[in-house]
Amino acid sequence: MINVLVEGIKKKQAPILVGLDPMLSYIPQYLQQEAIKEHGETLEAAAEAVWRYNKEIVDAICDIVPAVKPQSAMYEQFGIPGLSVFQRTVEYCKEKGLVVIGDVKRGDIGSTSAAYAAGHLGKVQVGSTKLSVFDEDFITVNPYLGSDGIQPFIDVCREEKKGIFILVKTSNPSSGEFQDQKINGKPLYELVGEHVAEWAESCMGDAYSYVGAVVGATYPEMGGVLRKVMPKSYILVPGYGAQGGTAKELAPYFNEDGLGAIVASSRGIIAAYRQPAYEKYGERGFAEAARQAALAMKEDIDHIF
Amino acid sequence: MINVLVEGIKKKQAPILVGLDPMLSYIPQYLQQEAIKEHGETLEAAAEAVWRYNKEIVDAICDIVPAVKPQSAMYEQFGIPGLSVFQRTVEYCKEKGLVVIGDVKRGDIGSTSAAYAAGHLGKVQVGSTKLSVFDEDFITVNPYLGSDGIQPFIDVCREEKKGIFILVKTSNPSSGEFQDQKINGKPLYELVGEHVAEWAESCMGDAYSYVGAVVGATYPEMGGVLRKVMPKSYILVPGYGAQGGTAKELAPYFNEDGLGAIVASSRGIIAAYRQPAYEKYGERGFAEAARQAALAMKEDIDHIF
Repeated sequence: MINVLVEGIKKKQAPILVGLDPMLSYIPQYLQQEAIKEHGETLEAAAEAVWRYNKEIVDAICDIVPAVKPQSAMYEQFGIPGLSVFQRTVEYCKEKGLVVIGDVKRGDIGSTSAAYAAGHLGKVQVGSTKLSVFDEDFITVNPYLGSDGIQPFIDVCREEKKGIFILVKTSNPSSGEFQDQKINGKPLYELVGEHVAEWAESCMGDAYSYVGAVVGATYPEMGGVLRKVMPKSYILVPGYGAQGGTAKELAPYFNEDGLGAIVASSRGIIAAYRQPAYEKYGERGFAEAARQAALAMKEDIDHIF
Repeated sequence: MINVLVEGIKKKQAPILVGLDPMLSYIPQYLQQEAIKEHGETLEAAAEAVWRYNKEIVDAICDIVPAVKPQSAMYEQFGIPGLSVFQRTVEYCKEKGLVVIGDVKRGDIGSTSAAYAAGHLGKVQVGSTKLSVFDEDFITVNPYLGSDGIQPFIDVCREEKKGIFILVKTSNPSSGEFQDQKINGKPLYELVGEHVAEWAESCMGDAYSYVGAVVGATYPEMGGVLRKVMPKSYILVPGYGAQGGTAKELAPYFNEDGLGAIVASSRGIIAAYRQPAYEKYGERGFAEAARQAALAMKEDIDHIF
């Protein structure tokens, strides 16, 4: 899948992805009201509104971007109906030729990580039948538990030719509280990055590894350091746009081949219709607003090269 | 809920909980075959087998232990049917008077953690209606993202009188890879513990805080240090039994009042029928074997005091 992702980025000339993080507050009132009219004020209504919102956005951006990143929390909060829409969204995006990165940030002790790996990337066995479950192409993984919590994901990646992005330096304001702490003069994120580089070597695609890293757009200096520490890992870069990262600061995340990073934007695209720049599209033009915002982001990122 | 948990521990004289981590390999063949006969080799069959297994075990242990800890990965791996059984298990355990700790190890940037907090501990709003979703009493949380990833969980705990256990030092063999790294002479887990102590102060029940910590039974020396660093936090102690922790090593996790820790055992109880000591109960006596193993654990832990 890392080869497919790299091909998609080249073909669409867009090292960008859209985060499908549909908070209800982003979803136009009319869509929410329609769903409530059909299902009452229920989790089913919330999930249905999320689905319709996602579908229109995916239809509007699928020819521009190579990948999407649904954030599991935004679905899980609506319980079983929400998770059904997570699954439906993953399936629909794959039908539309998009690479799907499940932003699930799972991570546990070995045997438990193995279950998450099977459910999200691999297959579970029932009787003599092997079944795919959520079947994303990539997922994000939390490294706090160390190697034996990561290895089961790598094993499944190798078998299924799928991938993971391991949290190294996250985009949020307090990420430094633990991640920046110095260990023998080197910050923890760099130590995690060194481990990612080793794991990456053990699970290579063509030019890049199935094991990538998450490094927030909000910390470009650290992005530059981590780029060199993990030469074979794709870097997933959240925090562009709404969280404050700008394109000119993103150059250090890329390799000299112009590859090696994919920049994520969520609400900056999916809720673009609420920004002054796109308000002319109105609530009902939310998908077209998302398309225009994705095109603007593509152009903005182009200026890096 | 921390007050309810402490009361339950006192009343049942058992600072122990049962981990409901039903890997299919633990579930007796006849239960799996029955479910497959009804549903074919499908996710529904796997989920149904998990449900029947859980229900019998819960019925057999609910008068002995104050709490259970379902591990979300073991349900999530079976997709929507699996997650429906997770929800059903949470509901059933609460009906049986058990405190439910969802072992979900979630954690993300602020707005995303808020969604997880709403879905697992709080309520989501659809139109003008507030709805409970998975509605566990406690969940486990990963600290790698720092304060702004933790705060939304604390906010919901305060509102709902529920709780979290934050991963501090995990029970797995490679937990030291990052958690033991020295920062100004102090290991990372201790720094995380210091933060837990602060968060705990901000969210107090009667004698203990709604904010607890996870510290593995496999590292008793660190347990003793962390006990003192986080005096107001309940410590959830996994790794007893199957992972190698023994009762005599658990004393340091408790405060002088005999409280402050709750020891978890999963496969050592739920799959007890596969151990030589309980094989006389046979496959079909798996629930009675679990009951006997829980009683033995209670007695073993009693020796600490």
